[in-house]
Amino acid sequence: MKTLKIIKIGGNIIDNEKLLADFLIKFSRLEGLKVLVHGGGKLASKLANKMGIDVKMINGRRITNTETLDIATMVYAGKVNKSIVAQLQANNCNSVGFSGADGNTIVSEKRPVNDIDFGFVGDVKKVNTEVLQLLVNNNVTPVFCALTHDKKGQLFNTNADTIVSELAIGFAKYFEVSLYYCFEKYGVLKDVNDDNSVIENINSNTYKRLIEDKIIADGMLPKLNNCFHAIENQVNKVCIGKPEMLFQTSSKYTTIEK
Amino acid sequence: MKTLKIIKIGGNIIDNEKLLADFLIKFSRLEGLKVLVHGGGKLASKLANKMGIDVKMINGRRITNTETLDIATMVYAGKVNKSIVAQLQANNCNSVGFSGADGNTIVSEKRPVNDIDFGFVGDVKKVNTEVLQLLVNNNVTPVFCALTHDKKGQLFNTNADTIVSELAIGFAKYFEVSLYYCFEKYGVLKDVNDDNSVIENINSNTYKRLIEDKIIADGMLPKLNNCFHAIENQVNKVCIGKPEMLFQTSSKYTTIEK
Repeated sequence: MKTLKIIKIGGNIIDNEKLLADFLIKFSRLEGLKVLVHGGGKLASKLANKMGIDVKMINGRRITNTETLDIATMVYAGKVNKSIVAQLQANNCNSVGFSGADGNTIVSEKRPVNDIDFGFVGDVKKVNTEVLQLLVNNNVTPVFCALTHDKKGQLFNTNADTIVSELAIGFAKYFEVSLYYCFEKYGVLKDVNDDNSVIENINSNTYKRLIEDKIIADGMLPKLNNCFHAIENQVNKVCIGKPEMLFQTSSKYTTIEK
Repeated sequence: MKTLKIIKIGGNIIDNEKLLADFLIKFSRLEGLKVLVHGGGKLASKLANKMGIDVKMINGRRITNTETLDIATMVYAGKVNKSIVAQLQANNCNSVGFSGADGNTIVSEKRPVNDIDFGFVGDVKKVNTEVLQLLVNNNVTPVFCALTHDKKGQLFNTNADTIVSELAIGFAKYFEVSLYYCFEKYGVLKDVNDDNSVIENINSNTYKRLIEDKIIADGMLPKLNNCFHAIENQVNKVCIGKPEMLFQTSSKYTTIEK
């Protein structure tokens, strides 16, 4: 089985032109087959502001209506995605931008309405890797934005951490997959105020204890749930940390184990 | 050699939700390998207005600056392209959206500054069909918006009529290519006020006469120049007319001959 790296970058890189350009140069040089998934960043909110559109919140949660879905589609699939693809091409990394509608790669369904109707937010139902395999097997790197579709013509906003985990699982049938979550910290920290407190390995047992001890909470919980979902579904390796973990310039990062 | 249809649709279809949906249903049913290229439509100007951005004109020609290039990228590669791809998927036509940066498919260079600096407008230099061939040979339909790149990280606005002609020429090495320019008229008209005055065939000799007689002028000139460029460079068949020409529901259209 060939190996394949799937890498997620978030707002901390995307919102910083210099960081992003630097990351993409190094990403282009990474050897082997690879897939990139990018989150949104702050550009969508900025555009909404410019257009005088209020971002609707219910109980502190963002709601995606028709207008904000249009903005997400324009910013994520348009501006951000094409800017990344053009920069990769400049670095001789042949790539093709994707939403989940392209190649019917990620099919989702509208998040069920319980207490809150999130609007056009989709939960992933199925990943189809046929088209992606054609590309990666020819050394072309798919670059995903965090949009999916329901195969009935509707696009959905979807969490990028979930997309990257589901893509990794979809690819794991055909490749030995390593999944990398890049974010602003060196890894999962025992003490959020101490960069040197990186937890090197977390398995499902230690994970439970870390939650009980409230060392892992808030935004880290869904991220780590996505990690465990991947490692429990044939993904070979899951790591969280700064992008440097990919380029062997940092040995500090967290590895997720079964 | 397999046959391949390359079809261009413009603003008259893209700006009309119902017309577009109807076109995409019929397009999905078209048998054989196919590529779709879409122009921009009025959505980009509408967004610019909403954002309070003035579209700069010099001598009546539109200038693409950083702000309007961002808008073009968001609207054409984002909103319009993904909406078309999602609708095609709903109609069981597997498709992948492309700008010229994706797959390094269309490399352009900034239009030389003579009297006017058009800004981020690119003239096509080279078409690479490798990635596109992978897809079309697997019955996946590429859907192009009218953006290209210079392979140095810069995106460019590029005329959609030119893109479709250059793509057709690029594919003509590997496929028997038919190129269809869909627009709001039944074809090239002898009398612009008479829908029944469609000129059935134009060749390079009759073309010269039609220009001399001022029957072909204004916007039709660059369109027809693109047609002749294609037919003189190994493209098998070039037609101009309403989309109905594709679906055998109209026999009125103009065929371009060498």
